[in-house]
Amino acid sequence: MKNLGVKPFLFPMPVLMIATYDENGKVDVMNMAWGGICGNDKVALNISKGHKTTKNLLARKAFTIAVADVDHLDEADYFGIASGNNDEDKFAKTNLHALKSANVDAPVIAEFPVTLECTLHSTSEDDGDFRVVGKIENVIVRDDVVDADGNVDPTKVKAFCFDTYQKGYYAIGEKVGQAWDSGKKLMK
Amino acid sequence: MKNLGVKPFLFPMPVLMIATYDENGKVDVMNMAWGGICGNDKVALNISKGHKTTKNLLARKAFTIAVADVDHLDEADYFGIASGNNDEDKFAKTNLHALKSANVDAPVIAEFPVTLECTLHSTSEDDGDFRVVGKIENVIVRDDVVDADGNVDPTKVKAFCFDTYQKGYYAIGEKVGQAWDSGKKLMK
Repeated sequence: MKNLGVKPFLFPMPVLMIATYDENGKVDVMNMAWGGICGNDKVALNISKGHKTTKNLLARKAFTIAVADVDHLDEADYFGIASGNNDEDKFAKTNLHALKSANVDAPVIAEFPVTLECTLHSTSEDDGDFRVVGKIENVIVRDDVVDADGNVDPTKVKAFCFDTYQKGYYAIGEKVGQAWDSGKKLMK
Repeated sequence: MKNLGVKPFLFPMPVLMIATYDENGKVDVMNMAWGGICGNDKVALNISKGHKTTKNLLARKAFTIAVADVDHLDEADYFGIASGNNDEDKFAKTNLHALKSANVDAPVIAEFPVTLECTLHSTSEDDGDFRVVGKIENVIVRDDVVDADGNVDPTKVKAFCFDTYQKGYYAIGEKVGQAWDSGKKLMK
């Protein structure tokens, strides 16, 4: 085995889109990998305080967090390159559409397949790392990702993930197992 | 668009293997999806206090967290079905091998491709959700996942992800983009 030192080397990492309004109602969207579900109705964002997103969600007490899909990979990556902290309208440069959430004071990007609408639950700081916890108030999805039984079909979401080793984006591939079932054969 | 109510519906979710020793040196491994990187040298586990893993890592002040691979999917899923809180030796039922970490007081499972060796950094509780933060002391990888340049090749890791919508496991598919590059065309 090989030692690589201190690196944040988990895989896969998610590609999550945090959307907020600023004090004037301007939409900002940020690309984030360091975060995810931290409770049945909670989501954690580990983001630094300097981001426009952080200022916005502290001011408006709300944000949305969406799953990016392959069809909007370029836009998702752009949201990770461009900064909301300048005079340009970062979001307007994409051709995406922002709708006002019916549940929280934040925008829902219509093109993303799955969006969690969140209110600000708490913030904390630990060893210089700033953390935001959101309370999930509702999940809103594109009609085409729901199957005939009313469940989200992960193959229709067309999500992708981030490779923290070499900075690639990878599609989600074929189904290889079923949780709480594939391992049953070892229970005997 | 369709409203689905309050659900922890991000995708993809990671499939992470937390390994610990109990007070007698017995190995336990647990399957966890709610957690991930929360800083350059930090990892967050959102796990309930009742798990054997939680008791073990609080007692030993260390754990490892590994990326599960498709070749060991059945074992990974089994670690999410079986409980360490009984008299059976949960780990011994698999044919996996535990090595003593050279850096922390926790086992490294030799078969998993990428393992983060962590010391206990802090714990916190928020609205009933218990959270453990580990400090990454070293990353140890299987020799075969490293490419000719000494970097981890994500396609060699053969990781898979968890689908929280219908409880499937999905392989990581083809490369579809490059972070901080695919979105450059929108910067003009």
